[in-house]
Amino acid sequence: MNSAIKICVVGLGRAGNFHLHSIKLLNQFELIYVVDTNEKLAQSVAEEYGCKWSVQLEDVLKDDALDAVVVASPTDAHFDYIRLALQAGKHVFTEKPVGHSVNEIQTCFKLAQENNKALHLGFQRRVDKNFVALKQRLAELGDYRIVKASSRDNPKPSYDYLKISGNIFHDMVIHDFDMLMFLFGALAPESVHAIGHAYDTTIASFNDYDTVLVNIKFQNGMVCSIDTSRTAAYGYDQRIEVFGEKGMMTVENERNTALNVYTKDGMSHEPYNHSFPERYKDAYLEELRQFLEGINTGLHTNVIEEECVLAHQLADAALESIQTNQTVNFSQFVAK
Amino acid sequence: MNSAIKICVVGLGRAGNFHLHSIKLLNQFELIYVVDTNEKLAQSVAEEYGCKWSVQLEDVLKDDALDAVVVASPTDAHFDYIRLALQAGKHVFTEKPVGHSVNEIQTCFKLAQENNKALHLGFQRRVDKNFVALKQRLAELGDYRIVKASSRDNPKPSYDYLKISGNIFHDMVIHDFDMLMFLFGALAPESVHAIGHAYDTTIASFNDYDTVLVNIKFQNGMVCSIDTSRTAAYGYDQRIEVFGEKGMMTVENERNTALNVYTKDGMSHEPYNHSFPERYKDAYLEELRQFLEGINTGLHTNVIEEECVLAHQLADAALESIQTNQTVNFSQFVAK
Amino acid sequence: MNSAIKICVVGLGRAGNFHLHSIKLLNQFELIYVVDTNEKLAQSVAEEYGCKWSVQLEDVLKDDALDAVVVASPTDAHFDYIRLALQAGKHVFTEKPVGHSVNEIQTCFKLAQENNKALHLGFQRRVDKNFVALKQRLAELGDYRIVKASSRDNPKPSYDYLKISGNIFHDMVIHDFDMLMFLFGALAPESVHAIGHAYDTTIASFNDYDTVLVNIKFQNGMVCSIDTSRTAAYGYDQRIEVFGEKGMMTVENERNTALNVYTKDGMSHEPYNHSFPERYKDAYLEELRQFLEGINTGLHTNVIEEECVLAHQLADAALESIQTNQTVNFSQFVAK
Amino acid sequence: MNSAIKICVVGLGRAGNFHLHSIKLLNQFELIYVVDTNEKLAQSVAEEYGCKWSVQLEDVLKDDALDAVVVASPTDAHFDYIRLALQAGKHVFTEKPVGHSVNEIQTCFKLAQENNKALHLGFQRRVDKNFVALKQRLAELGDYRIVKASSRDNPKPSYDYLKISGNIFHDMVIHDFDMLMFLFGALAPESVHAIGHAYDTTIASFNDYDTVLVNIKFQNGMVCSIDTSRTAAYGYDQRIEVFGEKGMMTVENERNTALNVYTKDGMSHEPYNHSFPERYKDAYLEELRQFLEGINTGLHTNVIEEECVLAHQLADAALESIQTNQTVNFSQFVAK
Repeated sequence: MNSAIKICVVGLGRAGNFHLHSIKLLNQFELIYVVDTNEKLAQSVAEEYGCKWSVQLEDVLKDDALDAVVVASPTDAHFDYIRLALQAGKHVFTEKPVGHSVNEIQTCFKLAQENNKALHLGFQRRVDKNFVALKQRLAELGDYRIVKASSRDNPKPSYDYLKISGNIFHDMVIHDFDMLMFLFGALAPESVHAIGHAYDTTIASFNDYDTVLVNIKFQNGMVCSIDTSRTAAYGYDQRIEVFGEKGMMTVENERNTALNVYTKDGMSHEPYNHSFPERYKDAYLEELRQFLEGINTGLHTNVIEEECVLAHQLADAALESIQTNQTVNFSQFVAK
Repeated sequence: MNSAIKICVVGLGRAGNFHLHSIKLLNQFELIYVVDTNEKLAQSVAEEYGCKWSVQLEDVLKDDALDAVVVASPTDAHFDYIRLALQAGKHVFTEKPVGHSVNEIQTCFKLAQENNKALHLGFQRRVDKNFVALKQRLAELGDYRIVKASSRDNPKPSYDYLKISGNIFHDMVIHDFDMLMFLFGALAPESVHAIGHAYDTTIASFNDYDTVLVNIKFQNGMVCSIDTSRTAAYGYDQRIEVFGEKGMMTVENERNTALNVYTKDGMSHEPYNHSFPERYKDAYLEELRQFLEGINTGLHTNVIEEECVLAHQLADAALESIQTNQTVNFSQFVAK
Repeated sequence: MNSAIKICVVGLGRAGNFHLHSIKLLNQFELIYVVDTNEKLAQSVAEEYGCKWSVQLEDVLKDDALDAVVVASPTDAHFDYIRLALQAGKHVFTEKPVGHSVNEIQTCFKLAQENNKALHLGFQRRVDKNFVALKQRLAELGDYRIVKASSRDNPKPSYDYLKISGNIFHDMVIHDFDMLMFLFGALAPESVHAIGHAYDTTIASFNDYDTVLVNIKFQNGMVCSIDTSRTAAYGYDQRIEVFGEKGMMTVENERNTALNVYTKDGMSHEPYNHSFPERYKDAYLEELRQFLEGINTGLHTNVIEEECVLAHQLADAALESIQTNQTVNFSQFVAK
Repeated sequence: MNSAIKICVVGLGRAGNFHLHSIKLLNQFELIYVVDTNEKLAQSVAEEYGCKWSVQLEDVLKDDALDAVVVASPTDAHFDYIRLALQAGKHVFTEKPVGHSVNEIQTCFKLAQENNKALHLGFQRRVDKNFVALKQRLAELGDYRIVKASSRDNPKPSYDYLKISGNIFHDMVIHDFDMLMFLFGALAPESVHAIGHAYDTTIASFNDYDTVLVNIKFQNGMVCSIDTSRTAAYGYDQRIEVFGEKGMMTVENERNTALNVYTKDGMSHEPYNHSFPERYKDAYLEELRQFLEGINTGLHTNVIEEECVLAHQLADAALESIQTNQTVNFSQFVAK
């Protein structure tokens, strides 16, 4: 048995809390620091979990006893925190994004390699049992021809969050781009097309969209359509369908309960899980467990650099497409 | 009770046969002629059904007793047959397409109106109980935001057919464009985008595609994604999903039987109907019944001219998009 | 091609009408008589279908041109009509029951054999595609261990009908007993048990039940549970489940449409077909077609005598069980 | 926040292990003893969990610091352990059964009341989200008319276990009887009927059954059919259906994943959870959490004495019925 990995969580909002909970359940982590720029918050969380606290990650990184850092801060700070932690020789688990540019992403992966530390990305769908089952059986389909994914959030995130989230492509569709990487690897895109609308006038005022459709043609012929909405009246909706030469595989939504009700109005069952924390409850635990396993086995990352960069570029290209009303030629776009 | 409508079927291939069968089941039609350029075929079908035959529609149209014509010939001849029949004062039921250009379509609708005759289009999905049920309840969704349709044929049509079918957009996706018209009316498109591939090298040699994805942005904000394949290993697959402000409605595939089998390998049920004749068996009868009803009640058409023209233009625009690798600005495109 | 079978329908109520409709669709029948004790009804139906009529079957049977008789009268008259028709050398299609005792059933089968005529029973579930599919695959299950069937009618039949229907076992559960015969053949029952209740006070006043549960142990170890209700708020409900050594097969209800609706209240679809005429629409046609085929090929019956007798005895035994509150030892019971 | 409840687990087999795991996850328990008649096992588990151990519960009960006992031993010892623990003033959580006779059950409930301690029964289905959801909505059905339950285990338990399990009614169907209590309360049974078979010759040699069907008539008219099998080729199968005046509710099996696979052979999904530990993973944790909550809030039990007694009597009556091939008149039976 390995001795406990001493860990710090930076960013104590919703994502931070998930990870604190997971750390508690996983015996092999020992939480020794929590960090948040909000001093009161840091202090009270530290009390609850019986650990030390700080408002500055740099201070904490000086502690040689610290092995690993979980980055769960607002996205603006991700790159800096990741960079500092890796430079200090700590393993890093981070929520997406790693950085706001290809350059930042590459810098982080390079630092992880140079320092021989883990850089683990929090793409929780990669460890969800349904998508894992899909990936395991995918090869039975022969060549992959059409991919359709729906990601519809619910309830709508707060405007405070949406204001600083960047845009729907980098904040939300990036998970679907990563799902493409997870399932198919870093295939070469030929063109990217995006259309959409902001039904919510506040979201429109941020020059953002709440409903988008992104279409990608890959050089091998595969076409892919991703639709995304910031809200779905019937609950959190996340599905994918892969159509290939020899058949089709779909991952449908998980049901909350297996209860069916039949009345004079027909058959019904209750809405889907109302938000991602319930939908991915098991996955949030599993991703931290895999981070731990990666540290113990020397595995550097769960997402290779090429895939991380490509997902980021697809989001860049989709944004370019919707803003110009043009199909983006991908290779010309990234060459710019 | 109305006296029987005396009818002629022109084109005695697969579609012609469906309609001959429907005419027999519907008491109020009396088949008096069959027409096909293949003399032997015309003769033998006439014998089977106990009616007269010809190789030329013009001859038959001279018969004042004839009330109506069903056009089921290869698509190249549609426009001429429709025009001749309407000019001769006959009601017309026709398989799509009405014509190969906006001009031809408009000519037909004009002739129908001038001659006060029915011009009924064979878009069988419009009378399928599932899509009718969808249309009836659609308004419950509030505004319509995302539409996704899949149309995957099976088995693959013959190369003889595919060679003269025009292209996948005008031959196959046109049914999905018509479904948009049926569900939402003639909404104004803003842009059209199409990507795809020919996995079948013979189809590639026709400069056609077997797998395409078409995306449309409408001026009201609605986005629409249609994927189509000439083949689907698991059987004929036709589904649609409408996502709106207040929820989502989907039409799934009908199952062949309600048998479920559970073994150590899991649960399974048999493949879907293997081709459109079985899937739309009831609809093929219903559309001819509605043609009859239209004649009796003086209803001119089941598809208004504007919708028919728009569906054709969407196919034109999709073809332009895939050939140029560009998003097509719809209003500029039709203005050309 | 065989020449048309000249046919007569006796009993012009609901069942009679189904069969008149089927006869019209099947070209190889020629309806030449309709018979009903209600003179006005017989006359008006005859006019509608362009055939002769009578109030007495005997008169009609004298016509040598007549080939076959469909018995669709109230159940009290079945045995006499069947007997007379077979004695007159006509083929017989009859709704259940053939007779009200084992003796009557055996008499009919004997007459059919002696006169070399078809005696075809209207157990429509035997030709329903779902139950046919089940039967075809059943052997995959290895030995059969548990059978569960639900038959819940809707809407509740009229009290006029229920008053003369005999009782729920002979009128309704008999279809499930026949389904056991169809699927498994005439297995030897060991014991029969029935419990139930009349929630409807009018049905209670007929000394009948509206809700019953019948359980059978077969000598080979198989146990079987059948539940039946005269009404089901959510629509006509007919399902069966066979559990065996190697798995389970179920036939679920067919859906009316493939439309799913998702709202904040969850997912729903519309009620099942509201009554048996819609549920078994195709089967009603198919059973007459098979009657025709049986006549043409010399096949005497679709249900062998032994199965017909056994189903009747199971209904007798179930009635005995519910009336005595005892488990019925089947072999002792039939030996009485 | 309450201080930790000091707890002991007696019986360190499979069930004991589930509870040890749950205790670890629930912060408010502190495991201070493990007890098993197998000294080596007790010692090694104690080492793993860092607690004390014994081969005799009596010794441990002398420790005043101990608050609560989890009884997970073979069923023969349940009553003695429960009695001793309650007499020693400890709260008790026990796997079923509480005892092997009505007298033993009543003794335990009386001791719990006299000592003002919790007696919590491990009927895990009572806290499963699906059955909880069913119970919450059940009243919408109006009067309850037909109840059908299936409980099919998989894989087959070991013969060692089966040999000492009593019989299938007291060991397995008891859970379904308890489910009736959970859903409907202690309704008055009118009659009980059971039939079944032993396909497994070893089970037959124990004078036990592997496949049974139990039917109950209640005095209010409700009929109930429960089928049970010690094995199911397609995986653990546990379903219930309640049919009432205004509709029907069903709890189906939970799926392992939401993956659907469509090929030329049809649609399929993987088998159900292969055994109860996976199926009721969440429920095993939840029942211990509710035990804790019961201790903290002074709630004595999750199953009232009357229900516990009645479930036991139903198992007695079912056994009597199958052994005598008779329907058991319930009130006469319990009066004996």
